[in-house]
Amino acid sequence: VSYRCRGFRFAGVATGVKKDGALDLGIIASDSLVPTAAVFTQNKAAAAPVKLSRTILKKSAGRARAVVVNSGNANACTGKQGTLDAKQMAKLGAKAIGAEPGEVLVASTGVIGLALDMGRIEEGLPSAAETLRSGNIDQFAKAILTTDKGVKISQRRIAIGGKRITLLGCTKGAGMIAPNMATTLSFVVTDAKLSPKALQDSLSTAVVPTFNAISVDGDSSTNDMISAMASGAAGGTSLRGADLREFTACLTDLLDDLARKLMRDGEGVHHVVDIFVRGTRNDQAARRVAQTIANSPLVKTAIAGCDPNWGRILAAAGRSGVSMNLAKTSLRIGSVPVLRDGEPSGKPDWEQRASDAMRKSEYPMVLDMGMGPGRARYLACDLSKEYVSINSDYRS
Amino acid sequence: VSYRCRGFRFAGVATGVKKDGALDLGIIASDSLVPTAAVFTQNKAAAAPVKLSRTILKKSAGRARAVVVNSGNANACTGKQGTLDAKQMAKLGAKAIGAEPGEVLVASTGVIGLALDMGRIEEGLPSAAETLRSGNIDQFAKAILTTDKGVKISQRRIAIGGKRITLLGCTKGAGMIAPNMATTLSFVVTDAKLSPKALQDSLSTAVVPTFNAISVDGDSSTNDMISAMASGAAGGTSLRGADLREFTACLTDLLDDLARKLMRDGEGVHHVVDIFVRGTRNDQAARRVAQTIANSPLVKTAIAGCDPNWGRILAAAGRSGVSMNLAKTSLRIGSVPVLRDGEPSGKPDWEQRASDAMRKSEYPMVLDMGMGPGRARYLACDLSKEYVSINSDYRS
Repeated sequence: VSYRCRGFRFAGVATGVKKDGALDLGIIASDSLVPTAAVFTQNKAAAAPVKLSRTILKKSAGRARAVVVNSGNANACTGKQGTLDAKQMAKLGAKAIGAEPGEVLVASTGVIGLALDMGRIEEGLPSAAETLRSGNIDQFAKAILTTDKGVKISQRRIAIGGKRITLLGCTKGAGMIAPNMATTLSFVVTDAKLSPKALQDSLSTAVVPTFNAISVDGDSSTNDMISAMASGAAGGTSLRGADLREFTACLTDLLDDLARKLMRDGEGVHHVVDIFVRGTRNDQAARRVAQTIANSPLVKTAIAGCDPNWGRILAAAGRSGVSMNLAKTSLRIGSVPVLRDGEPSGKPDWEQRASDAMRKSEYPMVLDMGMGPGRARYLACDLSKEYVSINSDYRS
Repeated sequence: VSYRCRGFRFAGVATGVKKDGALDLGIIASDSLVPTAAVFTQNKAAAAPVKLSRTILKKSAGRARAVVVNSGNANACTGKQGTLDAKQMAKLGAKAIGAEPGEVLVASTGVIGLALDMGRIEEGLPSAAETLRSGNIDQFAKAILTTDKGVKISQRRIAIGGKRITLLGCTKGAGMIAPNMATTLSFVVTDAKLSPKALQDSLSTAVVPTFNAISVDGDSSTNDMISAMASGAAGGTSLRGADLREFTACLTDLLDDLARKLMRDGEGVHHVVDIFVRGTRNDQAARRVAQTIANSPLVKTAIAGCDPNWGRILAAAGRSGVSMNLAKTSLRIGSVPVLRDGEPSGKPDWEQRASDAMRKSEYPMVLDMGMGPGRARYLACDLSKEYVSINSDYRS
């Protein structure tokens, strides 16, 4: 596959922050100032680059020329120096590509509480700028990784309103998706033509059932951020109405793919489970139930052990705060019914069949609460010994 | 220590439900119908015995003669049969001790989704009733255990209003306190004289900073329950005013001891950490922050690894939903300051010292958010590989 999107160039270089000489500084640059949207972490301890990027996008009314990203250091909880460093990083990035500091977003991922090595970033940015190429997203996608096993890139091509449109994105994960280095970063570019507002609405919508519906230890980290830039190189008029909805659907599909890639590469992850919840009063209630199940350590260890201990799933649903009537509740693991209208399966082989279903690397659990039209889906994964190993001694 | 409390007798027998022939059926009996209070799980999938005991206490206006408890099977998510079985268990228990069914509470702990073996319970109750002795709480405390390593009993003696009063209690834990068999049960008896309402108020108050402030995977299970019975054998008038407050303080102390014992015996637990949070707008906010920190898998794995990765603590506080100003936030691990008013510690040896502090089996973390008088404490523990092992293949 050739990953390219008209109007954008990518770069990734090694500055030596990562001990093994891996790539750790990346740039996405647009040819001009283009509509740019972003969704940032809700964490109150948001990192300096998150705060700065939020401010920049606000001041520019949703336009930017580039994103500069470093990995290995999150520039989070770094006090006043951290704020200065983030600004300096934007300034150096702008200088390297010939833009203004107010046109460059910054993002960081890695260890919390340690000052950035600004010398390395100052040295690295000009060489990164020199290697900016339209075919280089692979390098960029490598430069944003931390404990990930590999790059996560996704691309979609569709025709909307007679124009051929490309959406291209990449993401990084780590520690079971509440990344052990406390950062999920994602970057999307498209050549579609959209207003800044339409792009922001589209991104905000697409994030809900994708990046905001993967579990996780429930952590929204200090550095989480996803940005989308639209070059408009596909031409035509700005997308709106049905065309915009089609674009949003395609963006959602792209983000879903990236989110799944991120889950599969999570630390110690062997099973990715689609938790479907139905039959609640409304979608919000279904989402709350699905999220509680997906974050339950007891459910996650049962997933790890391929153990159809379904009482844990019911117990998690029961503590989610959502109304529940056990007598109306049904549960399937894979295609195996284990509970029907509050009565446990009477079939003698249910346990073996459910356990077999759980040995697959991806499978669904479907909880029907029988009380209304609400529905939601959440991606969950196992909690394994490897996860504990990796996160018990990441720093030391 | 001799564990006794005037007015109460205890028993524990083996009915064969537990594979290894361990005790699995227990009774606490009072000599007469006495004031009895209880706090039950808030879980919407509450087990049949929880629902029945709640109803019994309501109908009796807070009086009971006995509690009958079985372990090995939670009688949860067991459909209509489960409801009938819980009632039958209360009826059989009442018959065995010569009481009315409406005077006997029931509690169950163990596997979810499996029907009770009523034959064994019917056989076991009369022999349990025969062995009821005032000095037998040890047997009872054994009979309620599941994966616990040992019994957890605590006793306090105080003088209130010139009367010598005893408080005696026991509890069971398991799976890191969101028990893997989804049950925490606790039972307290006292010879103090109290009205049913005063006893309930006292118990409800004492539970908040003790059993409701231990972490946990955040799970309130389908079977959680704590009951308190007061025989009044100590004599005098019913406790009220300052005397009642003194009783409540002593009860809180007793429950704190039981809760700590439960934490120390949690599955795979090597470290019990007092999470102190200060400086929030109010106590409720502090509690929310402390709870979020205590339940964070990333914090818990850092505790397991004695890794002073304090960014994870800040990140958890930041996603708790409580207002935060990093520039006013300070954090100590043990007695080592790692963050002061938003600035990381500049001392070269902070990491070694903080790591040393974390090697202790019990130590505090103190987070000061610098914004108000709110404070709270939560007991947390590590998330270890043993926990994952135990919970990955408990059933299979």
